[in-house]
Amino acid sequence: MTRTFVSSPTREVIIGFDQPFVIIGERINPTGRKALAAEMKAGDFSRVESDAVAQVEAGAQMLDVNAGIPLADEPAILAKTVQLVQGLVDVPLSIDSSIVDALEAGLAVYQGKALVNSVTGEDEQMERVLPLVAKHGAAVVAITNDETGISENPDVRFEVARKIVNRAADHGIPKEDIVVDPLVMPIGAMGTAGRQVFRLLGRLRDELGVNSTCGASNVSFGLPNRQGINAAFLNMAMASGLTSAITNPLETEIRHAIMAGDVLTGNDAHANRWIALHRDPNAPEGGRARGRRRRAAVGEG
Amino acid sequence: MTRTFVSSPTREVIIGFDQPFVIIGERINPTGRKALAAEMKAGDFSRVESDAVAQVEAGAQMLDVNAGIPLADEPAILAKTVQLVQGLVDVPLSIDSSIVDALEAGLAVYQGKALVNSVTGEDEQMERVLPLVAKHGAAVVAITNDETGISENPDVRFEVARKIVNRAADHGIPKEDIVVDPLVMPIGAMGTAGRQVFRLLGRLRDELGVNSTCGASNVSFGLPNRQGINAAFLNMAMASGLTSAITNPLETEIRHAIMAGDVLTGNDAHANRWIALHRDPNAPEGGRARGRRRRAAVGEG
Repeated sequence: MTRTFVSSPTREVIIGFDQPFVIIGERINPTGRKALAAEMKAGDFSRVESDAVAQVEAGAQMLDVNAGIPLADEPAILAKTVQLVQGLVDVPLSIDSSIVDALEAGLAVYQGKALVNSVTGEDEQMERVLPLVAKHGAAVVAITNDETGISENPDVRFEVARKIVNRAADHGIPKEDIVVDPLVMPIGAMGTAGRQVFRLLGRLRDELGVNSTCGASNVSFGLPNRQGINAAFLNMAMASGLTSAITNPLETEIRHAIMAGDVLTGNDAHANRWIALHRDPNAPEGGRARGRRRRAAVGEG
Repeated sequence: MTRTFVSSPTREVIIGFDQPFVIIGERINPTGRKALAAEMKAGDFSRVESDAVAQVEAGAQMLDVNAGIPLADEPAILAKTVQLVQGLVDVPLSIDSSIVDALEAGLAVYQGKALVNSVTGEDEQMERVLPLVAKHGAAVVAITNDETGISENPDVRFEVARKIVNRAADHGIPKEDIVVDPLVMPIGAMGTAGRQVFRLLGRLRDELGVNSTCGASNVSFGLPNRQGINAAFLNMAMASGLTSAITNPLETEIRHAIMAGDVLTGNDAHANRWIALHRDPNAPEGGRARGRRRRAAVGEG
C-alpha cells in the first residue's frame, strides 16, 4: 500500500489509500486575492498568519503556500512565507510555485520533508525540478500535462503521469514520493471533466499505485452553490482513488463531506472521528497552532 | 450504453449510465413503520397517499411500494397499494416483496412496465420470479446473495450477479432489464462495507454492463447525522457506477447531493437542473401528482 510521508520538524503526515484523506489548505495563495497579493508584496504577512492558524484549527493536515505575485521577488517572498508559516503552525507544507527558483528558495529554508508543488511532464521542467526534489529528499506533485498541453483524454494524462514517475525514478525518487494531480477542469465548461478525472484517478490507484491530489475548488467555477458541487466532487473523487486535495477546510460542507467519505472508505476506523464530531460540534476538528497545541509528537498526523 | 426502461401508462423513466440518477422513493414501506403497517392492514391508505404525492413532488422519478406486514394478506394489500398509488401519481413503480405471490398480485394489476423488487441468486427463487418477470415484460432488481448468504467478498457477489443475468437470459429477459443491487451493509458494523460496494459497482458497470440500485439508507445505520453519511455514500457510489437508489427524496441533503452528482457525471447537461434549483429554490424539484401535473407525455422522465 503506497504511503507518502511528509513532515514538519514535529509532525508527520501520511497520504495513502489506507489513511484518512489529507486536506491541504489552499488559502495562502495570492492568485485571485488582490488584497493578499498587495500585502505580501509590501511585507505585511498578517493575513498569511491568520489564514495559517485558521486552516489548521479547522482541520487542514497540511498547508499549501504560494507567493505568485506579479512583478514581485517570488523566491524571496515564498521563502519568507514558508519560514513564517512554519514558525506558526506545525503541519507540513506544500511549497507551491511554477517558478523553479522559487521552489528552490522555499526548499532551502523548509524544515522537514516538504511536498513540492509541482512538476509537469515537460522535459525541461522535469530536468530542473526533479534534481531539486531528490536533493532535498522531498515529495512532489506531478501534474499530468506536458509540452502538448492538457489532454481531454484521461488515458493520455495517465501516460504523462507514468512518464513523470519513471523519470523521477531515474533521479532516485521513489513512486511513494510522487503525488499525481489529475488536473480538474470546470465542469460547467466541460461536461466530461468529472468522468475524465474519476477514470484517471482509478487508473492511478489500480495500475500505477500512486497517491493523488488536486485543486478541488476549480471544478465548480462559474456555478451556483460551489460548496455543494465541491463536496460531491470530493466524495466522488475519493471513491475513485483521490487521497488528498488542496481545498478550503474553512468550508464546513467540504470538511464534513470529506469526514463522511473517510467513514465510507473505512479510513475513519469505527467512525470514531465522525461520532466525535457529532458528539461535540464545538470541539476543534483539527490541530492547534504552535504554543496552543496539545501534542507535538511525530506521528500525530 | 445499457438503458433500463420502466413506465407508467403516461410516463417513461430510463435508468442508465448516460442518464440523470434515478431516485426511487423508499417511503411506502411498512417495515419499521408501525403506524403505517397498522393503517395499511386496517385498510387506511391515507399515509400511503400522502407519502406518494410528497415523494414525487420532491423529485422521486419512481416509487418503491412494499406491503410487508406480518400476519396480513400481503398479496392483496400490495395489489391494492399499487392500484391506489398508480391512480395518484404518474411515476413508474418498483413492486417490492420477498413473497412471490405478492409480486404476482402486484404485477397483475400494474399498468405499464414495472420494476420487480427482487430476485436473489437462489435457484428456487430465480425459477419462480424470472418467469413472472418475463411474462409481464417487466424489469427486475437482482440481489447479489444466493443460498450461501451474502459474501463479504465483492467478487463473489459479482459472480452471483452474473449468474442471475445469465439465468434471466435463459428466460428471455435481456440484461437491460436487470438492475443489480450490490447489497449495502451498515458501515458502522463493517468498515469495509463501502469499499466492497464501490468495487462491485465498478465491475457491474465495466464488465457486466448492467444498471444498479440499492437501499442507500442502510449504510448509515447506527451513526449520527445519517443524512451526511447517506449523501456522501450516494456520491461515492455514483462515481463507482450506481445508476439509481431506493432512498428518501424528502431529505434535502440527499436530493441535492444526487443533483450535484449528476452535474459531475455529466448527466445534468450544462448543469441546467443545478442552476435552475438555485435560481428558484422554492420551485418544485420533481413532478406533480395526477391532476396537478403540468405534462404527462411519455418521455417526460
